[in-house]
Amino acid sequence: MGTLNINHELDDQIFNTINPLDPEEFRRQGHKIVNFLADYYQSIEQYPVCSQVNPGYLQKIVPNSAPNNPESLDKILKDVERDIIPGLTHWQSPNFFAYFPSSGSTAGFLGEMLSVGFNVVGFNLISSPAATELESIVMDWFGKMLNLPNCFLFASGGGGVLQGTTCEAMLCTIVAARDQMLRKISRENFGKLVAAHIAGIDPGNFRVIPTIKANEYTLCPKSLRLAILNDLKEGNVPLFLCATIGTTSTTSVDPLRLLCEIAKEFGIWVHVDAAYAGSACICPEFQVFLDGVENANSFSLNAHKWFFSTLDCCCLWVKDPSALTNALSTNPECLRNKVTELNQVIDYKDWQIALSRRFRALKLWLVLRSYGVTNLRNLIRSHVNMAKHFEGLIAMDKRFEIFVPRKLAMVCFRISPLVLSQVSTKFDDEKEVNMFNTKLVESINSCGKLYLTHGVVGGTYIIRFAIGASLTHYRHVDVAWKVIQDHANAMLNQGYV
Amino acid sequence: MGTLNINHELDDQIFNTINPLDPEEFRRQGHKIVNFLADYYQSIEQYPVCSQVNPGYLQKIVPNSAPNNPESLDKILKDVERDIIPGLTHWQSPNFFAYFPSSGSTAGFLGEMLSVGFNVVGFNLISSPAATELESIVMDWFGKMLNLPNCFLFASGGGGVLQGTTCEAMLCTIVAARDQMLRKISRENFGKLVAAHIAGIDPGNFRVIPTIKANEYTLCPKSLRLAILNDLKEGNVPLFLCATIGTTSTTSVDPLRLLCEIAKEFGIWVHVDAAYAGSACICPEFQVFLDGVENANSFSLNAHKWFFSTLDCCCLWVKDPSALTNALSTNPECLRNKVTELNQVIDYKDWQIALSRRFRALKLWLVLRSYGVTNLRNLIRSHVNMAKHFEGLIAMDKRFEIFVPRKLAMVCFRISPLVLSQVSTKFDDEKEVNMFNTKLVESINSCGKLYLTHGVVGGTYIIRFAIGASLTHYRHVDVAWKVIQDHANAMLNQGYV
Repeated sequence: MGTLNINHELDDQIFNTINPLDPEEFRRQGHKIVNFLADYYQSIEQYPVCSQVNPGYLQKIVPNSAPNNPESLDKILKDVERDIIPGLTHWQSPNFFAYFPSSGSTAGFLGEMLSVGFNVVGFNLISSPAATELESIVMDWFGKMLNLPNCFLFASGGGGVLQGTTCEAMLCTIVAARDQMLRKISRENFGKLVAAHIAGIDPGNFRVIPTIKANEYTLCPKSLRLAILNDLKEGNVPLFLCATIGTTSTTSVDPLRLLCEIAKEFGIWVHVDAAYAGSACICPEFQVFLDGVENANSFSLNAHKWFFSTLDCCCLWVKDPSALTNALSTNPECLRNKVTELNQVIDYKDWQIALSRRFRALKLWLVLRSYGVTNLRNLIRSHVNMAKHFEGLIAMDKRFEIFVPRKLAMVCFRISPLVLSQVSTKFDDEKEVNMFNTKLVESINSCGKLYLTHGVVGGTYIIRFAIGASLTHYRHVDVAWKVIQDHANAMLNQGYV
Repeated sequence: MGTLNINHELDDQIFNTINPLDPEEFRRQGHKIVNFLADYYQSIEQYPVCSQVNPGYLQKIVPNSAPNNPESLDKILKDVERDIIPGLTHWQSPNFFAYFPSSGSTAGFLGEMLSVGFNVVGFNLISSPAATELESIVMDWFGKMLNLPNCFLFASGGGGVLQGTTCEAMLCTIVAARDQMLRKISRENFGKLVAAHIAGIDPGNFRVIPTIKANEYTLCPKSLRLAILNDLKEGNVPLFLCATIGTTSTTSVDPLRLLCEIAKEFGIWVHVDAAYAGSACICPEFQVFLDGVENANSFSLNAHKWFFSTLDCCCLWVKDPSALTNALSTNPECLRNKVTELNQVIDYKDWQIALSRRFRALKLWLVLRSYGVTNLRNLIRSHVNMAKHFEGLIAMDKRFEIFVPRKLAMVCFRISPLVLSQVSTKFDDEKEVNMFNTKLVESINSCGKLYLTHGVVGGTYIIRFAIGASLTHYRHVDVAWKVIQDHANAMLNQGYV
């Protein structure tokens, strides 16, 4: 064993220099990062909300290759402060009203830390039973909080799974729907399937059904039926309908019950995308949004949007898990094991695209337990109340108009075209109205005091004000409104027009 | 504003009860979790490596709905200790030799904490420029460390992206290859594409080309050419070849240069899957594995396997990013922005399936800087040396045979059929030999002192011993070998046979 011993000693030296998971070093450095982040939250309001750096800024200030020798955490954290933070858009800032919120929380953070610390790869039950079991349990807990019909819960043959994003959840359900349909019609008819792209379906076979303002931009059942009948007439096979509870542009809520009835008639898979609004349905007063969901095949929401769970955490429930597993199962020899073969256990790898998977359930479990259902409902309600408050502020300033009725914690508004047309006749052109509102948003965002984004519906540019960052409170909403008014004043009064 | 003020006061009460991101509460609880995890690493060897719980254990001990009221972190952590930890398989244990490692590290953990703490959603450049820019920078750093040809680096028109898993990376590249091909042939020929399933390609058009022991289970260029010619003869369109550097079963290394030459001749996209072995290629002595990669289209490795970055972190490089973005771009109005429209910037959402994305680059950046290239190479080498050492131990015990030559830090072995056939003639049947080795693995794993898994190649059951957990050192390998011998002794000598 002579030569083996020589390696041994050399390697001992390496290990003594760098032990990548030395518990005491982990403890020492872990505390430093906790303090760094706590200080960041303390001072978060001092940064411009939307990063003001120019593209390519970082390349100019960092070395062009990795260092050969170790650098200390203190040095790295100084660089984070000097080089990285200015390049961040601060999604956790109380003055972040853009897109939809990415609502972090202490409990969500702690759950992630536990998950990252354990660092298990929960592809199947045996690889870490607690990961699979806790996930099934919290998905049933959450399903009950949402008052989802029993058919989506494990006890009644359905079930839930945590995925990364809605995109993944949609892809999985489309693939499930596709394979279910291909078992009915033959594979030669693949080209006739009408749905979405990554799953191989012809982009030309994807139908976007227009919505109108009179219906608050919801999907109209009549239009759906017409589109289906048209496709059938042309020999196509309508496959998959995505109904949305809380659309991105305007948080519109599609009439689920009516849409599901039509889809059922034609054997179409219905997925309910409640990425943003789903979380609100833990409050009984919002559960009306889900009326009819018992006729859908699948339902998803993003807990990382408005449920205090950090990115990523998409909750997907299905009525028939076998539709998913029939389409997505893999059985590589290296993962074969007695438990899977003997028992009817859940191997979550068969519920998603990827084999490897994070232990995301810990995050949701910590959020649910640390805050409790009552407080979670009240937090959601407080955001909705702040949005009501903001809506009230807008209503008092006649230069602005609310564009669609507010449903939850997002308000869509713009400078009124009537007001603008009194300023100049050029605003009789809708494009000019849109341009004015575009410039207003750019002006507001470049001051760094708040960040908001826009949508375009039916050709109209609208300003979106989405409340839900965990640190946001009334005073932030009031200041934001003042800033918006100031920028509008400047543009309306100081010759901008 | 009377009614508005009433809401205001009620909500103040809620916010005073629960502020989900209060900095001082974050600090207090964050320190608790750091200590909890440091203590876990200190005591990790006391737990059975592979969880010994029975399926369904957790359901029996937790409540069947989420609590209405908050519970304290101390109570939750007690439950983690009592209820969750027994259900974990301890991937970070130094006695974990199963599957491939999931190599955690302090630096990887800290990077995740920063990423989770900032909790930005980096779909495009503007949503947090630092997230996109740091990702491009570290991918170029890493590419240079691997000595990847320049054509995979941003400076030369290629580029890298961090995805969750190899499965996602493969799906993205298959979709890119598919759409590139569909622009050449027409969409009517979709059914003739030969490749993989989620992307819509007929499972019947997926070719598994057999490998043999004489070639160390690598993909033989002759067999590849034959399979391609066969498909062409039948009017099919070969689309996508996955060459593997370090297969799961035996860490075999496909002859990349020869395979790429054939693929090039037929216009086939080559993806190089180096999920496990890729990390080793930061050591110049292993870069020979990548010989010929300049003729591949894409290359990926999992930094969460053997590069001290916690799950999930798959590094994907492509030579032609536009092939990816042509297939995967989306442009919803809500994400439109001046920077994207005016500049040639990277919007990473167009390089992957999902829209939302974590700031994974921080993790890789902290690993590279905290350890430095020299130490990272030495850590990889120390794992390879430990595997050599283990191989040496096996070679001295004639009851065992090494099944395929060791390439990196994984050793494939089994109880020799020759030895077994001296014990009983029933072992002239290969199935009985496999069964004996299966029982040996089950016996070892059920004792909890170590965890290893198996593979099956060419009908032969092999025991895999994969070294790479960050806490593993020679003493753990020595003890593991002793345990394996003890279980083999018991089975061979005490009448098991």
